[in-house]
Amino acid sequence: MRRTPVLRSDQLTARYGVRLWMKAENLQRGGSFKLRGALLAVDRLAARGSRGVLAQSTGNHAIAVALAARRHRLPAVLVVPTDISAVKVRRIRETGAEVMFAGTTLAERVAAVLQLRDRHRYDVVDPYEDPSVVVGQGTATAELIEQVAAEGGRLDAVVIPIGGGSAVAGACLAAHPHGVAVVGAEPEAVPAFTAALRAGEPVSVAASYTIADGLRPDRIGDLPFALAQHGVAAVVTVDEPGIVDAMRALFLHAGLTVEPAAATALAGAAQYAAGRGVDVGVLLSGGNVEPELLASLLSDTGAATPADSPAGYIPWTDVPWGSHS
Amino acid sequence: MRRTPVLRSDQLTARYGVRLWMKAENLQRGGSFKLRGALLAVDRLAARGSRGVLAQSTGNHAIAVALAARRHRLPAVLVVPTDISAVKVRRIRETGAEVMFAGTTLAERVAAVLQLRDRHRYDVVDPYEDPSVVVGQGTATAELIEQVAAEGGRLDAVVIPIGGGSAVAGACLAAHPHGVAVVGAEPEAVPAFTAALRAGEPVSVAASYTIADGLRPDRIGDLPFALAQHGVAAVVTVDEPGIVDAMRALFLHAGLTVEPAAATALAGAAQYAAGRGVDVGVLLSGGNVEPELLASLLSDTGAATPADSPAGYIPWTDVPWGSHS
Repeated sequence: MRRTPVLRSDQLTARYGVRLWMKAENLQRGGSFKLRGALLAVDRLAARGSRGVLAQSTGNHAIAVALAARRHRLPAVLVVPTDISAVKVRRIRETGAEVMFAGTTLAERVAAVLQLRDRHRYDVVDPYEDPSVVVGQGTATAELIEQVAAEGGRLDAVVIPIGGGSAVAGACLAAHPHGVAVVGAEPEAVPAFTAALRAGEPVSVAASYTIADGLRPDRIGDLPFALAQHGVAAVVTVDEPGIVDAMRALFLHAGLTVEPAAATALAGAAQYAAGRGVDVGVLLSGGNVEPELLASLLSDTGAATPADSPAGYIPWTDVPWGSHS
Repeated sequence: MRRTPVLRSDQLTARYGVRLWMKAENLQRGGSFKLRGALLAVDRLAARGSRGVLAQSTGNHAIAVALAARRHRLPAVLVVPTDISAVKVRRIRETGAEVMFAGTTLAERVAAVLQLRDRHRYDVVDPYEDPSVVVGQGTATAELIEQVAAEGGRLDAVVIPIGGGSAVAGACLAAHPHGVAVVGAEPEAVPAFTAALRAGEPVSVAASYTIADGLRPDRIGDLPFALAQHGVAAVVTVDEPGIVDAMRALFLHAGLTVEPAAATALAGAAQYAAGRGVDVGVLLSGGNVEPELLASLLSDTGAATPADSPAGYIPWTDVPWGSHS
């Protein structure tokens, strides 16, 4: 695991009116913060003599479990959705692990995992219900708070993207002792945490399409919800143009290429704190973005004639969703 | 100025057979390491009561001088080539400084600067002949050596891209006390340093087109050459496919978007040390890349079918040069 840097950007800070401290987990091994939880969980399973590991994921947890399994020379089977991004499939396969595709919903993947568990007698590394995973994910926030303090800063809040909920739950554990508020950011298209808060328990939501492939789980895990329900200070929902705009802004103004889930956190930070001049940490959760998706966003920015645009202004135009449409 | 992070990548290290330590000056204020020299030089001029500053540059030194001038509320005029990348023009103008276009050669820009100096009585911040600039650029290498040591490593060499020569000259000053070899990397299309070494003095070379807009100066500065002539351990020339391949590899395997000059350094590191398993620092000099250029490179990678390619292999295909062709 790497201690990833915390990055600043004057231009983004000026653009949003928020002092941003971005934890660059897009530069983490495996391309996302998910390695943190997977390593902790798989290390424990390996120590107990595991025969192999099995996990379902939208992609990044699968990459992370595959990497952690390789470290212990354990076989691994990863169940992913058919609409997974190709770069994530490649990263899993590069480790030597096996990929299985199962529908597009969480329920379909979970059913496939249960079948495979019976067949292989492998241990399941659940991305949401395994306490080791949740605690591991929290170390990204713990490091972020520590790194900001080392530079003489102090965070008012951290903003965490919400998929299945392990990141935000881990962040609550890590931020609580420091008195730093935890804010969740989820796509308007898949408001699973907002719905769970309303219902008082995890519920499956009717999900519409989101570009943020990592945030497509349509239901929050039970353990993450139990930990985060009273731990989060706020949850903001981000619409699709907002996600794309943040992804472009990160590229154009900070030179960072992140996946849409990470951009969702930045957009959420802007919505939560815009103009308040506070210090906000943002978990740039991952960088496993499809080159073609990024290319289509960049081709569309109108940045070829930047001199004609007001400084810092990025025109919004419709984005072709490519193979996801 | 920021203390930029030093980044590692298992995938690039495996790909090239070199333990890479990449100094991410693409994340520096202004998008390149050039701020280091410009700040030192402009701070000194401001302390002496300068009326304003003036500089010629392929782009990054101009951005840096403009930022440094704004810090002291000094007016600034920057002379740049007509084939400068649009993103660099935008970054200069965002500071409030004035941009003047003058041909495409170093000689044309220098002539324009002399005219403007007589007209405005501004101080010239020369990107090559000003000792403050050269010393400032060297701090990137000094930090890199220090940061690697802090992680328990030790560099065998640092690889520095060569444009006008201030970066490599500064690196020689910084690396000498540590016994770290300095290797220059320049485009085969503009082999100004190689030619100077052969001639025993700076000479203008017949330059052909290079994608590396920051490395287009067709002549090494006198001061940089004097400092680097005996200081560099080797100079490698990188062809255009090699620059593009490194730029793609940085994006696809390390999640980094850099400008072609920075990719030239990585390609040079690979050429210099491939398979030798040594520790090599690479100055990722800047990140001011045209979104359209990056988009065209990414669209062309064949990465849509990564599962069909051997792991880590990026097929080479012809790259449309866009407006530069």
